This record gives sequence, C-alpha cells and structure tokens, in this order.
Amino acid sequence: MNNPYLDTIEQALFGCLPQGKHREQKLLDAMRYSLEAGGKRVRPMLTVAFCALCGGSVEAALPFACAVEMVHTYSLIHDDLPCMDDDDLRRGKPSNHKVFGEDTALLAGDALQTLAFEVLSGDEAAALAGDSACRRACSTLAKYAGCVGMAGGQMIDLLSENTQAPLEVLQELVSKKTACLIRAACELGCLAANADAAKLKAAAVYGEGIGMAFQIQDDILDCTSTDEELGKPVGSDAENQKSTFVSLLGIEKCRALVDSYTNQALSALDAFDGDTSMLKSYALALAQRKN
Amino acid sequence: MNNPYLDTIEQALFGCLPQGKHREQKLLDAMRYSLEAGGKRVRPMLTVAFCALCGGSVEAALPFACAVEMVHTYSLIHDDLPCMDDDDLRRGKPSNHKVFGEDTALLAGDALQTLAFEVLSGDEAAALAGDSACRRACSTLAKYAGCVGMAGGQMIDLLSENTQAPLEVLQELVSKKTACLIRAACELGCLAANADAAKLKAAAVYGEGIGMAFQIQDDILDCTSTDEELGKPVGSDAENQKSTFVSLLGIEKCRALVDSYTNQALSALDAFDGDTSMLKSYALALAQRKN
Repeated sequence: MNNPYLDTIEQALFGCLPQGKHREQKLLDAMRYSLEAGGKRVRPMLTVAFCALCGGSVEAALPFACAVEMVHTYSLIHDDLPCMDDDDLRRGKPSNHKVFGEDTALLAGDALQTLAFEVLSGDEAAALAGDSACRRACSTLAKYAGCVGMAGGQMIDLLSENTQAPLEVLQELVSKKTACLIRAACELGCLAANADAAKLKAAAVYGEGIGMAFQIQDDILDCTSTDEELGKPVGSDAENQKSTFVSLLGIEKCRALVDSYTNQALSALDAFDGDTSMLKSYALALAQRKN
Repeated sequence: MNNPYLDTIEQALFGCLPQGKHREQKLLDAMRYSLEAGGKRVRPMLTVAFCALCGGSVEAALPFACAVEMVHTYSLIHDDLPCMDDDDLRRGKPSNHKVFGEDTALLAGDALQTLAFEVLSGDEAAALAGDSACRRACSTLAKYAGCVGMAGGQMIDLLSENTQAPLEVLQELVSKKTACLIRAACELGCLAANADAAKLKAAAVYGEGIGMAFQIQDDILDCTSTDEELGKPVGSDAENQKSTFVSLLGIEKCRALVDSYTNQALSALDAFDGDTSMLKSYALALAQRKN
C-alpha cells in the first residue's frame, strides 16, 4: 500500500508547526512527537488524491491534507489518555502522555486541533484554494470531527463499554468514530479543487465505504494477528468486553462486509472522469492489509 | 457591569448545539452544561460591541461571538480536569468532570472547540459576513487560541508551577493564556463588520489592554475577596506557590498596572468614529470589578 505523496505530505505537515524556540517549547515538542509518529498518512493521501482527481494541484490540497491529519493525531493523543483508553503504546512507541505527561498531552491534542483549523483557514491556503473553499473546508472538517461526528463516535464508544453493543450501535459508532474523518479527507480534496456537488457526494460515499471497511478489517486483524505484525497489543477489544464486528458477526461475515463496503467505494469512483486507478488500488489494498 | 446583549448571546449560543435526541446525548448534555454555566459573557459581548462599532449588525456578529465563547468554555473544562488544575468547582457549580466524568468532560471540551470552528465557518455565518470574513475569523481565532496563544499560555503556566516565575514570564503567560482570547473576541467583531486593518489593530490593542487588566485584577481579588464574593475558592494561587502579579509587585503596584492597561485600552478606542461609550465603561468596570 504505497503512498506516493508521503514525503510531500510529511514535509508540509512538519512545516506547519511554529519554528524557532518558544517558552512553551515543551508543548510544540509534544505536538511534533505525535505528528512524527504518524503511520501511513492514509487521510492526507486521500485529500491529495481527490484534489488531483478533480483537477486541482497538490499544493492546494496540502493545507487541507495537513489539517485532516492533525485532527486525526489530536484524537489519537486524547484517546490514549488514562481517562480514556489508557494506552501506553501507539504505533509501537510510547504514547504522548507517557513521554510528556498527561497535562502536556491533553494540551498537545487541544493545540493540534486548533492548528488544523489555523492551517485550513490561513492566508496560504486561501491564496491557493480561495476563501470560499477554505471556509467550506473548515465547516466540513468541523462537522465530521465534532459532537455528532468523530467526537460523538468516541462518546458512543465510551457508553458502549461492557455492554455488548448491538450491530446497529456498533455501525453508528464506527461510522462516526472512524469513517467520518476519512470521509472528511476525501471531501476536502474535492473542495481544494473547487469540485462540484456531485463529486463531493461521490467522495463522501467512497470515504464512508473505505472507512467502514478499514475498521472492520481492524477488528479482523485484532483477532488474527500477532502484536508484532500489528504494531500494537492484539485482542484488547475482546479483553475490554467490547462488541466488535467479529464478536457480533464472526470472521467470515466480516470479510464479506469488508468486500461489500469496498465495492461501494469502488463504484463511487465512477462519478469521476480522471484516472481513478490509484484510489481503486488503495481501497483494495486497505481491504487486504495485514497491519 | 451590564451586558446589553446577554440574552441575545445566550439564545444564539444554546441554539448552536445540535437539536433532537442523539445516541451521544451525554456528550451534548455535557457541552450544554458548561455553556449554560457561563458567567458574564465578556468575550462574546466584546465581539458584538466591536461589530456594532464598525457598522456591522448584531446578527453578523453572533456566530463569531458564540465561537469565541465556545473556545473559552472548552478551555475552562480542560483546565479543571484532574491532570490540569484539578478544580471541583467552576463559577460555584461542580466542574464538568465532577458531573459527567473525566472522559466525557475531555470530549466535551474537544467537541466545543470543534463546534466553535463549525459555527464560525458555517453557511449562516457566511451569508451574513461573507466567505472572506469567516475564513479570516477562523484563522484569527485559531492563532490566538493555539499553541503559541492560549494553549501556549497554559503550557507556560504548567511549566511555571512551583518555580516563582519572574515578571517577564508571568506577563507572557497572562498575555497568552488570558488576553489572547479577549483580543480575538475584539478582532472578530471587526472582522464580522469587514472593518479595515487600522480598526483591527486598535481592537487588538484594546483587547490586550483589558485582558491584562482583567487578570491582574483577578490576582488582586484572589488576595482581597472572600470565597462568597468571588464565587470560587480564594487564595488558591498562593497555596500552589505560583507567582502572581500581587506576589511579585504587591497590591498597590498591581492597582497602578490595572489602571495603565485600562488606559491603553481606552486610548485605542480613539481609532473608531462611532459611539465608544459602552466599550469605555466596560474597560473601566472590568478594572473596578469585585468578582
């Protein structure tokens, strides 16, 4: 699963942090730590790819791509805190609060969210994509990340602990907690290219499809991998007595569901005229990933 | 210290929350709890007042005003968490995490920050103030709330615990932690009215002046009030061995400093043609407040 924009994205991402020395340096170091500990940069890659597919430039997509990755990173820092999932490891490295302390990790998450909106609405972004696109991108990202989006999904997750949530609840949980931000990444790419409403809609369908497939595949891997393959402790959901797609449906039905969501994503790409081969292989690769 | 826009602001503020029942209702309830527990609504009042002073409408200012108040509210929820200041009371009521638990309080703060940017960049705000004003308001609010603004100030505060920070550090801390967001409130009012750069600059100077005066007055009240007058425990900064303006300069010099910052704010109002009487009395009332 290759990300052709990886270096470009990471360079832009790290360049968003304030340069020079500051009295609050520890906060900037904590933000940088988690930004640098990033994984495959799936979300920003999707933003750049959809922008390119709609005829926009990589440059115009980058501020939007960075913003989505920052929101994702903030959510991981806060999810790992002791009062949430209390995870000591993230992508095989000590989680933010293990390195910087809970107070700084809390602030680092807060400030990464703020920085996302700063980058998205900044003069540089506006010079490339226009005021209207930047404004709508802020609105879209906030809607998908907020109280009836990603944060709402995390709330449903907390409320579902030790309850064996039924499938309907788990689907809403995953759609909000995971798929929402992936959908935002796809839509923001279209917005950066000032694409029309039909393309925005198709990008949303693609994002929802691969987002759901991504999480169901995660549940499958949580049951079938080793710690080493996965880069994090396996079986943690089962230990926490949480419902997962696997516990509710079994592995085989989950695999079929991954395929079905992946096909939904692939069909949505028909709405675009350009070369969709990369986004097609990406959806397929996500469905077949091992970590 | 009368806020003529109080009811209008609170109606708009509570109206920003998603309506109807949601599976993540607890999160929405936690957000509403802290929004409703609000105090004097100083920041949104400033936004509306500066918009009116620049010839804009109250309606155009309201989304911007609500956004600033949401960022303020999110910061209070997170500041009160056990890993930060560990405060059980806020404005005489149990703090958010005492009512909803730490995990939900963390999320409520996160989601209030997100909602701030959603409201600021939404279609309603854009219809009233225009794409460019909304985009610039997002950028301004994010800059002042972020890692070298309000969140940076909170980091400096954490780093200064038990250190008897010198005056220079305390000034930067307060300028960032407290004055930044007040400055943002004033500037956003000008942006909502599409005011020129000279007015934006003057609003920033006013905001910085009353912001600094506000915090120094807080330090004075923390030493001279009773719990009852203040609505929160007095003397907590002294107990935590933190530097305050009073511990570094003494009460009399602090009073002079409050006057000097207040005068800076009053002079800045000369840049405006309209009726500045309300903002003048506000600056004076803040400097003389008892709680």
